[in-house]
Amino acid sequence: MRRVAVVGIGKTAFGAFAHRDLRSLALEAISQALTDANVLPAQVEAFYLGNFAGPSFTGQNHLAPYVGLATGLTRGVPCTRIEDACASGGVALFQAWQAVASGALDLVLVGGVEKMTSQPTPKVAEILSGAGDMSGEGRAGATFPALFAMIARRHMHEFGTTREDLAAIAVKNHANGARNPLAQMRKVITLEQALAGKPVADPLTVYDCSLVSDGAAAVVLAPLDRAREFTSRFSVIRGIAQTSDGVALDAKDDITFFSAVRSAGKCAYEMAGLGPRDIQFAELHDCFTIAEAIASEDLGFTGRGEGGRFASAGCSAINGRLPINTSGGLKSKGHPVGATGTGQICDVIQQLRGDAGDRQVARHRIGLAQNLGGSGATCVVTVLEAA
Amino acid sequence: MRRVAVVGIGKTAFGAFAHRDLRSLALEAISQALTDANVLPAQVEAFYLGNFAGPSFTGQNHLAPYVGLATGLTRGVPCTRIEDACASGGVALFQAWQAVASGALDLVLVGGVEKMTSQPTPKVAEILSGAGDMSGEGRAGATFPALFAMIARRHMHEFGTTREDLAAIAVKNHANGARNPLAQMRKVITLEQALAGKPVADPLTVYDCSLVSDGAAAVVLAPLDRAREFTSRFSVIRGIAQTSDGVALDAKDDITFFSAVRSAGKCAYEMAGLGPRDIQFAELHDCFTIAEAIASEDLGFTGRGEGGRFASAGCSAINGRLPINTSGGLKSKGHPVGATGTGQICDVIQQLRGDAGDRQVARHRIGLAQNLGGSGATCVVTVLEAA
Repeated sequence: MRRVAVVGIGKTAFGAFAHRDLRSLALEAISQALTDANVLPAQVEAFYLGNFAGPSFTGQNHLAPYVGLATGLTRGVPCTRIEDACASGGVALFQAWQAVASGALDLVLVGGVEKMTSQPTPKVAEILSGAGDMSGEGRAGATFPALFAMIARRHMHEFGTTREDLAAIAVKNHANGARNPLAQMRKVITLEQALAGKPVADPLTVYDCSLVSDGAAAVVLAPLDRAREFTSRFSVIRGIAQTSDGVALDAKDDITFFSAVRSAGKCAYEMAGLGPRDIQFAELHDCFTIAEAIASEDLGFTGRGEGGRFASAGCSAINGRLPINTSGGLKSKGHPVGATGTGQICDVIQQLRGDAGDRQVARHRIGLAQNLGGSGATCVVTVLEAA
Repeated sequence: MRRVAVVGIGKTAFGAFAHRDLRSLALEAISQALTDANVLPAQVEAFYLGNFAGPSFTGQNHLAPYVGLATGLTRGVPCTRIEDACASGGVALFQAWQAVASGALDLVLVGGVEKMTSQPTPKVAEILSGAGDMSGEGRAGATFPALFAMIARRHMHEFGTTREDLAAIAVKNHANGARNPLAQMRKVITLEQALAGKPVADPLTVYDCSLVSDGAAAVVLAPLDRAREFTSRFSVIRGIAQTSDGVALDAKDDITFFSAVRSAGKCAYEMAGLGPRDIQFAELHDCFTIAEAIASEDLGFTGRGEGGRFASAGCSAINGRLPINTSGGLKSKGHPVGATGTGQICDVIQQLRGDAGDRQVARHRIGLAQNLGGSGATCVVTVLEAA
């Protein structure tokens, strides 16, 4: 397999944009990414679009050519929509990476997009539930906050994780997002506010849950040995893996870790020839605060059961040992589902390039992104290195 | 790129199955395909699932791991859902082929599934409309029968195609489907019946329109040089291409041909080192009778504007010069959208193997499948050869 570079990134602000439709968001991110890569639409050989539930949110399906041809791609270029719940963007990236790494393609555009806020909240919750097992969990009325509340409660029981530990993750991510001009909720919160948040599914409050968002993000991939033809500001995909597990939470023996995250991390580290200690910062999939805690364990950043304390001890702050979610994470930056995976890559690369302004981390040569689908049924982990 | 073989096929009956859910249909087809290939689930390295609108039809999203892990695939194996409207199955096949041909993977499972009949007809029409441009066509109330009616009317105007020509396609496909035990509508019809069909969108009657169906189909791919490890009954993918075009019909200069079909055909022929005259039989995407007529032109089986007369002259009958849709086509066999592309591959291979019983064509060394998405925005053409 050839080594692959990310030669361009582009990202819209995440938020609730009443007057923007799905396609205009995607086009904005794609246009930025192509410009950043110094690539013309006509040069693109294939387009992969991550999108979770465009048809349910907007009525529009067949989204890959719907978006792709509107960007000015050459007629005929394969346009493929990828859906793997909240990991749709990450899986689109993995599939595109595989096509370039294997030599099948050279210059590939990867987009991710979701337009969620045009639906009322109960409908959004229903659509999101489709990422879980509707024949069991869904029928029983278990929404995603309910599923992750069970995970959080069990993690507290097993490892002594506290509400304060989870709240510390929310406080950190809000502090970071408040300084990110593209974040949806740019609001600093205190530990007291986080602890006093309106309950959603005990023990999770509104401050433990990620946002409902509109947004898009895109990247351009090329073989590493051609990267300099396009830009000097490329990044290298050192390792990447896509993994799976059962969709139903109740089929798991232990809900305090995700085997798909562990195996994706293991594969990505092996490909990179690196380990958790080599990772200098990370964007983790904090759909709920407990998910960030568990991901930091599953990826080996901290010991089993210690993910909550890792955050409350300040280890994952921007100036901590291993900064996590300097973008603000899904919690504060926003979580336009299909855009989240490619958005994380853009956020990691912003740090690798030293472009993160007052959120810039000190050590920024190697970063990691982790994108989770459902309650752990899909995971993509990517290890990136500055050029 | 390596040459790739199809080492196993599996297919459910297509129909309206009130007591079957999406996953049980997919599992039936996959189980058959793995058995046919003498492959254990644990040997599969990746799973690609074509599905158009499972979330809208059934509420269940995240379908690739939802189906894949239930088949007994190894935990961790990448499970990827592909959506490209009615070409979702064909695109899943193309993406899997690309992964094997490029050397990234060896043994790959490709499924296609749709469960449509649990929704009432108006809702089905609305969901299907999402494969077109909802911001224009959809807002104007143009359903797919309406779009293809415009195409048919223009084809009649330009080339003198008649209602009788289109009805002949319906009569032929019903005659074939009546002899296919897996077909949904096993009913011979006369030209008079077809012409007297209830109008749907003038000039198309109910006999010009494909069916609303439940069903699944699956294939197993392997590198050609490993095919004999699994079976002696493999088939070879000689050529394959995935192409795109704009989703909106009104953006096309000429609606009497599909540029995506022409370019997919051209690429697939080039890869195969073959031309239209080498194709001995074909499964074409007759979502409407006019679509079969146009596809037979776009793929070079007949001259421009002659697709209707090609059928009414008997050239595409089982005993004709180039038998088309010996399975009964989408018209009679059924059109469970996401399963149609992989289903066509199963149908072609059934002929290549000489297993088509009283529908068996005389010359069955090289066959072609053409899978169309929307009103021509996605196309996959595959040329297959008997081992």
